Amino acid sequence: MNDFSIGVDLGGTNLRIAAVDVGGQLVEKVTLGTKVSLGRDHVLNDMCEAIKHLSAKYKNSAKMLGIGIGVPGIIDMETGLLRESPNLPGWADYPVRAEIERRLTTVVILENDANVAAFGEKWLGAAKDHDDMAMLTLGTGVGGGLVMGGKIWHGMNGMAGEFGHTTVEPEGHPCGCGNRGCLEQYASATAVVRMAREAIAQNASSRLAQAAHEDAEFSAKSIYNLAIQGDEDAKRIFRRVGRCIGIVLSAMVNSLNLPIYVIGGGVASAWEAFAPSIFEELRQRCMVYAATAPPDPLAQGGGASSHVEPGPGRKTIITRALLGSDAGLFGAARLPMIAEAAR
Amino acid sequence: MNDFSIGVDLGGTNLRIAAVDVGGQLVEKVTLGTKVSLGRDHVLNDMCEAIKHLSAKYKNSAKMLGIGIGVPGIIDMETGLLRESPNLPGWADYPVRAEIERRLTTVVILENDANVAAFGEKWLGAAKDHDDMAMLTLGTGVGGGLVMGGKIWHGMNGMAGEFGHTTVEPEGHPCGCGNRGCLEQYASATAVVRMAREAIAQNASSRLAQAAHEDAEFSAKSIYNLAIQGDEDAKRIFRRVGRCIGIVLSAMVNSLNLPIYVIGGGVASAWEAFAPSIFEELRQRCMVYAATAPPDPLAQGGGASSHVEPGPGRKTIITRALLGSDAGLFGAARLPMIAEAAR
Repeated sequence: MNDFSIGVDLGGTNLRIAAVDVGGQLVEKVTLGTKVSLGRDHVLNDMCEAIKHLSAKYKNSAKMLGIGIGVPGIIDMETGLLRESPNLPGWADYPVRAEIERRLTTVVILENDANVAAFGEKWLGAAKDHDDMAMLTLGTGVGGGLVMGGKIWHGMNGMAGEFGHTTVEPEGHPCGCGNRGCLEQYASATAVVRMAREAIAQNASSRLAQAAHEDAEFSAKSIYNLAIQGDEDAKRIFRRVGRCIGIVLSAMVNSLNLPIYVIGGGVASAWEAFAPSIFEELRQRCMVYAATAPPDPLAQGGGASSHVEPGPGRKTIITRALLGSDAGLFGAARLPMIAEAAR
Repeated sequence: MNDFSIGVDLGGTNLRIAAVDVGGQLVEKVTLGTKVSLGRDHVLNDMCEAIKHLSAKYKNSAKMLGIGIGVPGIIDMETGLLRESPNLPGWADYPVRAEIERRLTTVVILENDANVAAFGEKWLGAAKDHDDMAMLTLGTGVGGGLVMGGKIWHGMNGMAGEFGHTTVEPEGHPCGCGNRGCLEQYASATAVVRMAREAIAQNASSRLAQAAHEDAEFSAKSIYNLAIQGDEDAKRIFRRVGRCIGIVLSAMVNSLNLPIYVIGGGVASAWEAFAPSIFEELRQRCMVYAATAPPDPLAQGGGASSHVEPGPGRKTIITRALLGSDAGLFGAARLPMIAEAAR
């Protein structure tokens, strides 16, 4: 067996723990519910038990390189404190890293969840073999991660990569971060449902209204299903998602001129419905994209076959993520491997 | 005498050539008009003669380390071609670097003008001793430069740092780059005059209208003079400048979490008129700034005394540039020194 590490993806809904080997093979994955309502201690206990179990099971067959944990929220990289975490109520300013290290009596690496997702896609996914990349994760909110020179770019306080809070509409919808008109307000799953409810308020006899009435779990997925069935209201919502992503990507491409930008998270499943609008905005708004666009950008978003090798062409690639919900798990597992190599 | 290099700032109006030593001392500076109307050859001839003159004058006293040239426009770093250059009509797709190297029979380093300005401020100015910084240059247009890990961040094609083309108003004023509502359309000298003319069209009896009528060279400076005299229309224009810079800086701070952002260029002379609006927007819009703002951000913009040493505080500094129009000259001269050190 190859040397391995343990990656953890601590989400607001699911808690997943995996042993991953240095070749990128998933050795074993444990999926638990995150019992947020039972409190921090309960969640940390579940996590640490699963880590100990996996570690004990494999550590006699190969070297265990360490533990990486992806956490939703802003982490102070120096202190290991979770600064803000809307999806883990009651965890703000809690010394998460110190507490896990105390329970496991070993060093762990704590990292923002969108950063580990980016790092996973960089290691094994859509941005494989690219040293520089950025990722947007369209989930309940919109997370972002930036990898430069093969490393996660943290910025001076570990707070970099918050592309989801770029202003798209200066007087737009209020955002939980304090700003108005953030990308998150137009491209998250939450935003898709809100925009649908806004459309329903305008037209109560639409198919959207009917679906919302019939479907107790009226979600971004329900709205996407209507869009692929051709419902114009639903299609318009996803065009707006794409437009807003396109505006933010235009700024990112002009500012950073990276080789590849990856779009992941649950809402990325609706790629077909919003991606054309992304490329429309980029072509119109972004001079660096205009100078570096590949001939057929949408062809690259097609799925597993879309992987684009870095080459002398030096084109700007915008593509969907390949690892789905495992991106963060792989990225978290990668952290101790890199730290090991740096020693 | 210390070892020295030659820096060139090739602007649309002025052509400046300087010998600068490795300690950052200006040895000699030559300022010429850029005779754009006489054509490329004439301008290159003026430049190369001045370089040869300075080089010959000092090369027996110290080692001449090389030549760095700041050029307005997008440069393909691989080929040395000037891709686009609105201020140097007729130079697009011209092999500038190869032609200068042919004339001087030596290697030169070509770099975007906003990048060299950032690099100058990083070496000797407001961002001295910071390895990571970004700069906005508010001139005829709005240029940008990004320094990461002590080096200019070029991106894959040398096109990074175009913060001036970040969208502020998705349906805003058309920009020469093809986009609408770019920062450049609200924060350049050109934009200040345009916004004044828009205000005059609304109110032909205003002091702005009177000034435009009386002043043949009605400029951003004229409008700033009215603002400091208390004219409400003029003040409103600079508040808009600050607001738009604040929106773009909010995205930069959330995305990059750098220690320092420097505002330079001619329009930065109006700092007092627009800076309060920048900080107002940052406080409202930018969660990373809210978590890392120094207690009195405006106190840092006060001039030469404003230099902030990097320290354990890890605050986000937004400040005005210190080197004025010499930033680019120093930054250009620094390029061959760094290249020399890397050998």
